[in-house]
Parts: sequence; C-alpha cells; structure tokens
Amino acid sequence: MKLTVVLPVITDAFTEEVRREVGAWVSPGTEVSPGTEVEVRRIARGTASIESEYDEALAAPGILDAVREAAEDGADAVFVSCFGDPGVQAAREVVDIPVVGGFEPAVLTSLALGERTGVITVLPNVLPMLHGLVRRYALTGRVGPIRVVDIPVLDLDPGDRLIDALTEQARAAVAAREADVIVLGCTGMLGVAAALQERLAAEGPFVPVVDPTGAAIMWLESQVRLGVRPSRTTYLPPRPKDRIA
Amino acid sequence: MKLTVVLPVITDAFTEEVRREVGAWVSPGTEVSPGTEVEVRRIARGTASIESEYDEALAAPGILDAVREAAEDGADAVFVSCFGDPGVQAAREVVDIPVVGGFEPAVLTSLALGERTGVITVLPNVLPMLHGLVRRYALTGRVGPIRVVDIPVLDLDPGDRLIDALTEQARAAVAAREADVIVLGCTGMLGVAAALQERLAAEGPFVPVVDPTGAAIMWLESQVRLGVRPSRTTYLPPRPKDRIA
Amino acid sequence: MKLTVVLPVITDAFTEEVRREVGAWVSPGTEVSPGTEVEVRRIARGTASIESEYDEALAAPGILDAVREAAEDGADAVFVSCFGDPGVQAAREVVDIPVVGGFEPAVLTSLALGERTGVITVLPNVLPMLHGLVRRYALTGRVGPIRVVDIPVLDLDPGDRLIDALTEQARAAVAAREADVIVLGCTGMLGVAAALQERLAAEGPFVPVVDPTGAAIMWLESQVRLGVRPSRTTYLPPRPKDRIA
Amino acid sequence: MKLTVVLPVITDAFTEEVRREVGAWVSPGTEVSPGTEVEVRRIARGTASIESEYDEALAAPGILDAVREAAEDGADAVFVSCFGDPGVQAAREVVDIPVVGGFEPAVLTSLALGERTGVITVLPNVLPMLHGLVRRYALTGRVGPIRVVDIPVLDLDPGDRLIDALTEQARAAVAAREADVIVLGCTGMLGVAAALQERLAAEGPFVPVVDPTGAAIMWLESQVRLGVRPSRTTYLPPRPKDRIA
Amino acid sequence: MKLTVVLPVITDAFTEEVRREVGAWVSPGTEVSPGTEVEVRRIARGTASIESEYDEALAAPGILDAVREAAEDGADAVFVSCFGDPGVQAAREVVDIPVVGGFEPAVLTSLALGERTGVITVLPNVLPMLHGLVRRYALTGRVGPIRVVDIPVLDLDPGDRLIDALTEQARAAVAAREADVIVLGCTGMLGVAAALQERLAAEGPFVPVVDPTGAAIMWLESQVRLGVRPSRTTYLPPRPKDRIA
Amino acid sequence: MKLTVVLPVITDAFTEEVRREVGAWVSPGTEVSPGTEVEVRRIARGTASIESEYDEALAAPGILDAVREAAEDGADAVFVSCFGDPGVQAAREVVDIPVVGGFEPAVLTSLALGERTGVITVLPNVLPMLHGLVRRYALTGRVGPIRVVDIPVLDLDPGDRLIDALTEQARAAVAAREADVIVLGCTGMLGVAAALQERLAAEGPFVPVVDPTGAAIMWLESQVRLGVRPSRTTYLPPRPKDRIA
Repeated sequence: MKLTVVLPVITDAFTEEVRREVGAWVSPGTEVSPGTEVEVRRIARGTASIESEYDEALAAPGILDAVREAAEDGADAVFVSCFGDPGVQAAREVVDIPVVGGFEPAVLTSLALGERTGVITVLPNVLPMLHGLVRRYALTGRVGPIRVVDIPVLDLDPGDRLIDALTEQARAAVAAREADVIVLGCTGMLGVAAALQERLAAEGPFVPVVDPTGAAIMWLESQVRLGVRPSRTTYLPPRPKDRIA
Repeated sequence: MKLTVVLPVITDAFTEEVRREVGAWVSPGTEVSPGTEVEVRRIARGTASIESEYDEALAAPGILDAVREAAEDGADAVFVSCFGDPGVQAAREVVDIPVVGGFEPAVLTSLALGERTGVITVLPNVLPMLHGLVRRYALTGRVGPIRVVDIPVLDLDPGDRLIDALTEQARAAVAAREADVIVLGCTGMLGVAAALQERLAAEGPFVPVVDPTGAAIMWLESQVRLGVRPSRTTYLPPRPKDRIA
Repeated sequence: MKLTVVLPVITDAFTEEVRREVGAWVSPGTEVSPGTEVEVRRIARGTASIESEYDEALAAPGILDAVREAAEDGADAVFVSCFGDPGVQAAREVVDIPVVGGFEPAVLTSLALGERTGVITVLPNVLPMLHGLVRRYALTGRVGPIRVVDIPVLDLDPGDRLIDALTEQARAAVAAREADVIVLGCTGMLGVAAALQERLAAEGPFVPVVDPTGAAIMWLESQVRLGVRPSRTTYLPPRPKDRIA
Repeated sequence: MKLTVVLPVITDAFTEEVRREVGAWVSPGTEVSPGTEVEVRRIARGTASIESEYDEALAAPGILDAVREAAEDGADAVFVSCFGDPGVQAAREVVDIPVVGGFEPAVLTSLALGERTGVITVLPNVLPMLHGLVRRYALTGRVGPIRVVDIPVLDLDPGDRLIDALTEQARAAVAAREADVIVLGCTGMLGVAAALQERLAAEGPFVPVVDPTGAAIMWLESQVRLGVRPSRTTYLPPRPKDRIA
Repeated sequence: MKLTVVLPVITDAFTEEVRREVGAWVSPGTEVSPGTEVEVRRIARGTASIESEYDEALAAPGILDAVREAAEDGADAVFVSCFGDPGVQAAREVVDIPVVGGFEPAVLTSLALGERTGVITVLPNVLPMLHGLVRRYALTGRVGPIRVVDIPVLDLDPGDRLIDALTEQARAAVAAREADVIVLGCTGMLGVAAALQERLAAEGPFVPVVDPTGAAIMWLESQVRLGVRPSRTTYLPPRPKDRIA
Repeated sequence: MKLTVVLPVITDAFTEEVRREVGAWVSPGTEVSPGTEVEVRRIARGTASIESEYDEALAAPGILDAVREAAEDGADAVFVSCFGDPGVQAAREVVDIPVVGGFEPAVLTSLALGERTGVITVLPNVLPMLHGLVRRYALTGRVGPIRVVDIPVLDLDPGDRLIDALTEQARAAVAAREADVIVLGCTGMLGVAAALQERLAAEGPFVPVVDPTGAAIMWLESQVRLGVRPSRTTYLPPRPKDRIA
C-alpha cells in the first residue's frame, strides 16, 4: 500500500526524521505484497508548528490541499502527523481513503491496555484543544488529566531532556492513579516511547507507552487490510459551491 | 459599543440583510450611551456558505483575519455569524474582546427556557459537526436529537417554505418529547423565529424559539456590560513563530 | 421594561443595597424606550438568609407569592435574588414571564468564557444544594469543584475581608486547573466581582469573574428583548385544587 | 420501631387507606421485638395533592413541620409519602433519623432487578420534576423514559381503570426495550403493583413491579436495623437565624 | 424465608463466622412468620479468597453450582458473599429467586444516605474490578475514589489493626470531600462497621458506614417481602446446549 | 510472531473454519520476518457456544487454562474468539502478552470510522452482557442501540440467510440514524463483513462494516509491533493462594 504522511508544518526541519521514523514502523515488502511505501508531504501554507487552536486553524487548508493531492496521487491512506487531529474530520469528507491524525489511533489503542489513559503533551496552550477532543470523541470516562512537559515543539528532540521530563510526568501520573497507560501527546516526540517505557518498568510495575506515530501507522495499515474507510453517513461529501482558499 | 459581525462567507449576498437584522437587535443610543454601532465584514477567502467541516476549515483563516482586523479597528465584541462556531476558539486566543459564534449563545440561552433543547438546522451534512459541538461543550444531557429542514443555506429565505419546514420539524420534535425549546440551527435562518414561535403557540402549548443572531447580539452586549471577556487560562496567546496563511 | 427583584429573605437589611446594585446594572432609558424600571420586593414569610435546603424550602412559598404578585402588578421579568434558584422552577409554572435565580444566568454565562467554571460560595452547608443544581441542570462536565469562603451571608460585605477570601479561593482554583472562569456563588456577594477580577489579573493571566446579579439582569433584559419566556411543555400550569399555604 | 408516614396533602381522604397499606407492609411484632408501629400524619398547610413543582414548594414547609414533630415525638424513621421526594433533602438537615420519600427507595431497589428502570407516573406535569430527580441523583444511565397514565392523583383508585392504563404503558415500555423493571411513579397508586406484575407475567417474560410505598417501608426498616442515618457532611444542620414560615 | 449464603471460597475458615454474623442480621421468627432461616454453603471449586479478576473467574462456576443447588433445595434468596458480585449476573439467569452479591445492596443503600459514596476495600488488585462495577452499574456520578487498607482478605480480622486502617482511610476520604458515606468494600470485613461509624462520629460529623453483609441481608429480605425477583427481560434463561464445567 | 486463537467452546465444529479465517487475515511471512503463525486451541471445559452470562462464566476457567498454556508455549499474543470478551480481563492478570476478545478491537476500531457505532449480534440473551461491556468500557457516548438477527451461534453460517438478516438490521440502524458504522457482534459471523458492506453500499451511502475477527488480528499484530502489552497497574498479578478449578 501507499501511505502518505502529511506533515502539517511549513518547515522541512522534520521531514527526514519523520520519513525515517515512519519507515521504521511500516510493514516491509514480501513476495506476495509490496509492503507499505511511504511518502512525506509537508504543507505549503500554515505554521512552523501547531501549538494552539490558532495554529490549527491556519494549518487546516494546507492540510486539506495535501490530503486531496495525496489521494489524487494514489495514496491508500493518509496520516496527518499532529496529535490535535487538525483537519482530519474535514479531510474524511473529501477523500475516499482512511485518514487519521495522532490522537485517535493512539488513544483508542491505549484503551485496550489499561483502565485509565494519561496523555503527556508539550505546552499548556494545547490543553483545551486536547480536552475538547476527549469530550468530542466522548472518551472522558477513560482519559485522565492531561499533563505537559512544557517544551515547545520546535525544541523537542529525542534526548535525555525530553525523556527525563516525560518520565517525571508519567511517574507522577501513575503515582496519582491518574494513568495506567501513557500516550505521548505530540507526534513531534519521536523515538522516545520505548525508552520511556523501559525507564518506567525499571522502577515500578510495567506501564505501556503508546507512540502516536507508530499507533497511527498500525491503524492505517489495519484499516486498509480490513477493507474499511470512513462512513459516508458521518462524512458527507461537501456540496459544490464557490470556494476561495 | 462597537460590534463587528464577521460574515464567514465570500459573497456579499447576505451582507445587507445581516446588517439590517443585526441593526434591529442591538441597543439604540441614549443620552448617556452611544448605543451599539454595527459593522459587518465578510471574509476575503473561504466559501460561499458553510455546510460541512470542509467549508468550516477553509473559512477559518479568513475569519481569523477578519476578527483580528476588527479588534485592531477598535471593535468591542465580535459575532462570527455561523451556527458552527467556526474559528471562534482560535479567535479567542488572538484578541482581547468577547467573540462568539451562533451556537453557544443560542443553546446556552435555551437552557434556561425549558428542559430539553431541540436544534433545527439546514442539512444532514452539518449534523456530525453540530453533534461534535454538543459533546465538546459537554451539553449532551440537555440537547436532544438535531433535525434538518433539508434546505441549503443559499436557498434559505424568510418565506413560508422555510417557516413551514421549520414548523413541521419543531412540531415533530415537541410531539416526540425531544424538545421543549427550539433553537434555529443556522444563522442564515433570518427573521423567522418570531413567526415560528407564533405558529407553534397557535396550535399547542407555548414553546420558545431562539434566534441565534438575536441571542448572539444580546450575549455580546451583556458580556461588554458585565466587563468580562474570555479567560486567558483557556485561551492562551499563540506563541510567536513563522506562519504563512 | 419593568423588572422585579424578589429578595427571598424576611429582613429589609439588603433591600436598599440590592436596589442600588441592580439599578447600576440595568439599561438606562432612551428616547425610544423607557429603559428598565426596577422594583425590589422582599418576601413576607421565609428566613433571614438562605444557607440550607431547609431555608430554601421555608422561603419558597413566600417567593412564589412575591413572583405571582409581581406578575399581577405588570412585571415583565423577575429575578429571584438567590444563587440556589429557590422556587424558580415552580414560579415558571405559575407566571407567563421570564423568571431566573442567580445560578442559571451566571453559570451559563460563564460557559462561553472558558473551559471550566469554578464557583465560590459562602458555606459548606450549601454545597450539596449547589452540586445538586449542577447535576440537575446536567452541567457536571463543565463545572469544577465548588469552593467556600466560609463566611455566613449575613456577615458578607463588599470589603477587603470578603475580597481577600475570594481571591485566595480563586487563586487556588486556577492554580489547581479547576477553574478558568470564576462565578460568585452567592447573590449577597455584591459589588466585589470587578475588584476580584482585577486582583487576579494583576498577578496572573486574565480570569473573568461573573457577578450573579449582573448576569441575571442581563439575562432577563435579553429574554425580554428576544421575546422568549419559559416553555409550557416543561413548565405546565398547575391544575386547580385546594391549596393552603 | 416507630415509623411515621407524613402524608404531604391537606386532605384526610387518603389517611385511612395509607395506614392500612403501610400496616400491611411493616414487620409484625415478635417476642423479641415489638415490630414496627405505624403513625400517619397529614400536613396542616400545603395542597390537596402534589402534581407540580408549585404544589411541591407549597407543601414543603408543612412537610418539614410534620417531620420535625414526628422526630420530637420519638419516631425512628419517616416516610414522606410522595414520589417527588418533597422536602426530603431539607428534612435530613433538621432531624437525626432516616427520612425518605417515594422515589429513592423504589428506584434504587429497581436497579438490582434489571438493566433499565421504567417509571410510570400520573401526569405530564410531573415529568420535568421527576427527570430532574433522575439527573440530580445521577441515575440517568439506568432510568429510561418516564411514562404517564394521564390520571390525576385524586382520581387514582386501585381498580381496573388504573391497572389497565399501567399495563398498557408497562407493556409498551418493555416492548420498546425502555424498561426491564417497572416502578410505580406515584405513592397514590396503592395496592396495584402485584396485580400489574401478574398481568405482565401472564403475557410475557417476568418483569418485576416495584411499589414505592412498600419499597420505602423496607428501606426505612433496613436503615434502622443497619444502624445508619443520613450523613452530616451532606446534610449539615441549618444555622440559627430568624425564620417565619 | 430460607436464605442461603454462598461463601465463594474453597476453605471453611470463614463459614462459622459468617453464619454467626448473618444470623445476627436476619429477622427473628414470630407467631405469624417463621423468620429467616440461614444456611451457609462454601463452594467446592474456586479459590481461597477472591482478590483479582482471575480469582473471580475461577470461582464463578462453583458459585453457580451452589446457587443452583440452593434454589433446588428451596432457598428463597441467595447472598453471594463477595463484594465483587462474582457470578451474580449469571446466577440470575438460572434461578427464579433474588440473588445479590455484596456490592449492589451496599452501594445502592449508601446512595440515600449522602451525596458521595466512598468505598474502602482490601488491596489495589481489586480496584479495576470494582471501578468496572461502578461503571457497569452506571453509578460513576455518585461513587468517589475507592481506597484500600492494603490487607489481604485472609489477614482480615475484626480487630484494631483493621479498624485503625479503615478509620485512617475513611477520615482521609471525608477530609478530601470524596465521601459522605463509607461502604466497606469487602464482605470479609465482618463486625467492624459499627465500630468504625462510632470512631468517625467521635471525632467529627456523623458519617454512616454501610456493612455489605448487613445491607445484603436487608436487601434480600426486602425483595422477598416485596414479592419481586430479577427481570426475565434482562436475565433470560440460558438456552439448552452441551456444557462441561 | 506466534498468535494463538482460543476458541472458547467445547466443540471442534468451528476449529477449521476459524483457522482458515484467521489465516487469511494475518501477515504473510517475508525475508525479514517469519510472518504470523496461527494456532487455534479450543477449551477443554465450558460450553458449546457462549450466549449468556452463564455460558461465559462456565467458559472462563477453560479460557484461562488455554491462555496460560499458550503463553507457556511461547505465544506472542492471544485472541479469545468471542465478542463478549470472556475471561479477557482475568487473562491479562496472568500472562505477559497482549490478550483481546472480539469486542474491544472491533468497537475501538469502529470509533475512528464514523460518529455512532451500531452493533448487530445474535440473540436478545446477550444484550445485557454487551450493554454491560459498553458501560464498563465507558463507551456509551458513541455506541448506539444493539440489534439482533435472532439466530443462535450454532446456526450461523456465512450464507444468504445471515447476510439478509444482517442487511435488514444494518439498514434499519442507519435509517434511524443509530449507526454510521456497523460492527458484527459475534465472532461466529465469519466471512460476511465484506458482503454486508457491499450490500449496504449498493443501496446507499458507504457504511463500513467491521469484522471482529479481522479487527482482533490487526489489533494484536499492531500491539506486538508497537512493543506494548497490558498495564501492570491495571492488571496486577494474582497473589499466590490455594486454587481448585
């Protein structure tokens, strides 16, 4: 299958890293199937990172352009690489293939791993947006308080500073019985889930850590293998009209 | 006070009608206060009408431009004239004045008028978007099923066809005990609330009908008189970064 | 319009202060409208203050007498000046004009200002009553823990002691992420909302403070201007029968 | 033990019937215990029946007088014989013995008998009041739509007309999968629960029918035997103050 | 009536103590009724105590054997003496008499005693199982955090160590406003409810403590006196088929 | 990876069919990975099919035996092939590998495909069990009414009778706006999901149909690839004690 990753930012700073990371998650080719081919597209208009409802609103049209183009170019599924699921509902209205962001696959995956899910994200700025998603998706009964490492997206790197900050928040969430499963609440937190999971297991009971990028890739490959795509009774095709965007 | 109405469409078709309608709702001037001065701005980029998540996403950047400009030009409050509250959460992050769309003021007003609120909107296309708002705002315990008249926004006009369709749906909702209060679920349903309320009262118990435009104007004038505006712990100012939109 | 404030207490101690306060909130007269005329009525039977379900039950018949009399005397709207909304549901069954207490207008107003509402009231005695209203109105998803200043109603006055106590509780609620908006949980907390809002803004992000008296006045003026009143499918007229009260 | 039944009406029309009915439910005396002694008190001020929030508000002070007097006269427990639980929360603040109305014992009893509870009450007038109790007690997840027989309290009698009407509503509720257990939603529906239960069992699967009077008596005898009474952290004693009621 | 207590453990260690305890709760005989006759049956296969979903699953078939045998031997009601309600839903499908475990009667009883119920159980191992029951029974709006004394079932005895541990947790729950009523969360906590209730009352406001064994006995005697049993629309009889268990 | 399917029935009737079906869903081998190897184990004690809480309780110990044995034999993940998730919570306490039943993977997968999920299962007997799972997993906000085809598990076969019955129920659920996504509510409904999805799409908007077996296989392969397994703070290992099962 052909998987397109839409990077909803206007910089190329993450493109290579994301291609590498996603490439490591997808299914390799076999005699019987060519495996998953990955394409990464960043958006032409939007923001350098998404850390507010404002950034999300500015990025959405660019995301929709990229998703539409990916579908026209034959993509079988699209991952909008942002935990806020920007433009995802709208994208499902305009293409006939599975589209997910970072939130849905990671949080839904976490629900079968433990009783309560603890999300750890970047900054307080995104909390109302993420709380809004928890309520919109009607998952308030399973998702606990959302915590932050207080590091901007552009300063994230898979080093000790991030892992230390995540460990501190995860530890506190588990100790407070807020969380049995940890979900990394930003798709920019690349390549740290396994290290965090090990750190936590080294000092207490095993607590799974869900990487939103990995979860999204599994989710999309699964949807394609299951032969399903978004419902047209929820996602009706937009009616023809003048649009300038 | 100076009230700006942001018309989130790229056509001027509604501008005059909306100015007239809003002008009829606002407080007149007095010796002691100049009254509410109304300005209507339509957006420069977006769509001809908002009838899907897709339209909403395309309209948001233009709405944010208009809200920011209105604030810079001294507006005391902004009404984004669409029942889907497009760009409203984002707008509150970037200006220091009250901003509302059509959903919040109308639905919150309805909650003090009866036990269950019945919304009647235009097309099935917008139902998931509106259901999403009901859940996001955590009002599922009070808002009943949402009904449609199945008339596109651009075909709405304050004539009998619309009032007949609204009456039919409102009657059915009341008969099914789904609704004790009716909220018109599109700000394009201008000038019909009173007629619908009369029609319903003529044939059964009094059921209030809330006009989203009128409710929004009252709401904004009230917020200004109360001296309140959106919280900065929910709506944090976006951090400086590159943005191309 | 003619607005009647029903003071649900048997003392005249607050009458003048409430008349002054309400007078400062209402719309002034204009060439085209006479503005809002205010009348304050205290009840003939009930209690010196309402601080329990018991006080509320004893006050209700007197409140209903006053509301009925106000309607007979031509009132266009009635504000029952108590945060517990005593007798409000019953009053809506017996008069054809808008009636609100302090809770509904203030809390509903707060919902469009931030994600979570923090109520600060007088004494622990009223907490179950207020929690009961939050559940009855189905607003549990948006209203956080309710705090108290531990000052009886009769000892409230708009001085530093009250403002200090409110500031302490509001600060704690915001710090604990319980609240993004503060609602004063007693209509006896007169004339302190603005001062509290300033205090909070002076030391941190802007957090709006909603005064229940101001919110109720705006709410009733808005309902009259919108031409709505409570639904007769929720508030059916009581059937004729013997009543001794 | 000494059980007082407070009949919250100003007529003696039901006194004998209620004494007989309650007498048939209580525990008989034994060598080791004197059994439950029943006293019925109707209220001195209030209404001929309770069929609205208005009636409930007018009856509450008389109910509180009667409950206080019963406690002073040595009652071990009090049943306020009305399904709307009028004055019950307030009464718990002022006496040190168990007090229940008709709703809580019947509905809580029903929850261990089947998945969904269907209440059948008298008139549409009381629906918002009962829906309000369902929400206030946070039982919305288990209680289905509430149905009515459309017979005023004063016209209720344990004859075929009432049983036919109840059977029709109960049958419809079960057929619609709204209810697995039926709760009679008025304490004036005396002596018909067993007959209704038989009627339903004769024509379909067994569906239990809970009589609110019987359930309340069992509940109070159980509370006394368990040595429990209402919590003083929920029901704080009212503070001393002037009260004219 | 004939009451059977099913002890869902494979040891006789508790049999006598439970018989004594239950015997002290049941109604004594009278001239008109023989009173409640108690029989205690432990199960033939299962575990030494139930402290996990695993133990519960292993015990269920033995519990079902015992309940079926009890019904065949003429029991009028069955109490499965475990707070996790093991096998209770299944048992209701196969017998025509009331069956309860420890959770339902105790927690439902607590709901009429105060606003929030605080459960105190044995070990962290059972928390997800009990949280699962709270959600399954749709009681999340009234039951607060569940606390543990961290003492295994087999080490429980009605001495100071247990009462001290319960007092500490109950005090903390009340202080944190988590609980207004305490429910002992293990039927092995025999004979300590009254002592705990006294301890709490000696140092603060009265907080009722519900003993799950006592509550279950009252519940079953009440159901038999009310003439009700579980609904056959919720608990359908299992269809005939091969079963090897 | 090595995947074990635990068939929770005592007959070999389904073994071959399930092996074939599961074999068709798993990942094939590649140069770099051996692909998923499938093993099917039926249980030694239990029932011929699971259609009640009673059957589920009788099957659980046998399921736990089989899961433990599978783990000892080196399984990397276990699928308990029943939509009621029998023994799944307990199994997670005793093994260190991912374990799922049919409900969780299918329903969680459906949540990213549309707004409301409609489950269609076999018989009314299992409805309370499935409703109980919906509540226990806190998914009531997204899962609509559950429908039945009224065909016993042992009579299911992938022929027209089943597809016709499913089509009829799915059509009705979509028409009533109960469902935007259909989940087959029995793992015995093998090989019909694609045909049902086509039938629905042929006559109306595209509505995805989720096959619980396929969804479970994708889920387990994904969990293994993500390197996660159930949390040990939710699923604590059972303490050592005597167990006879």
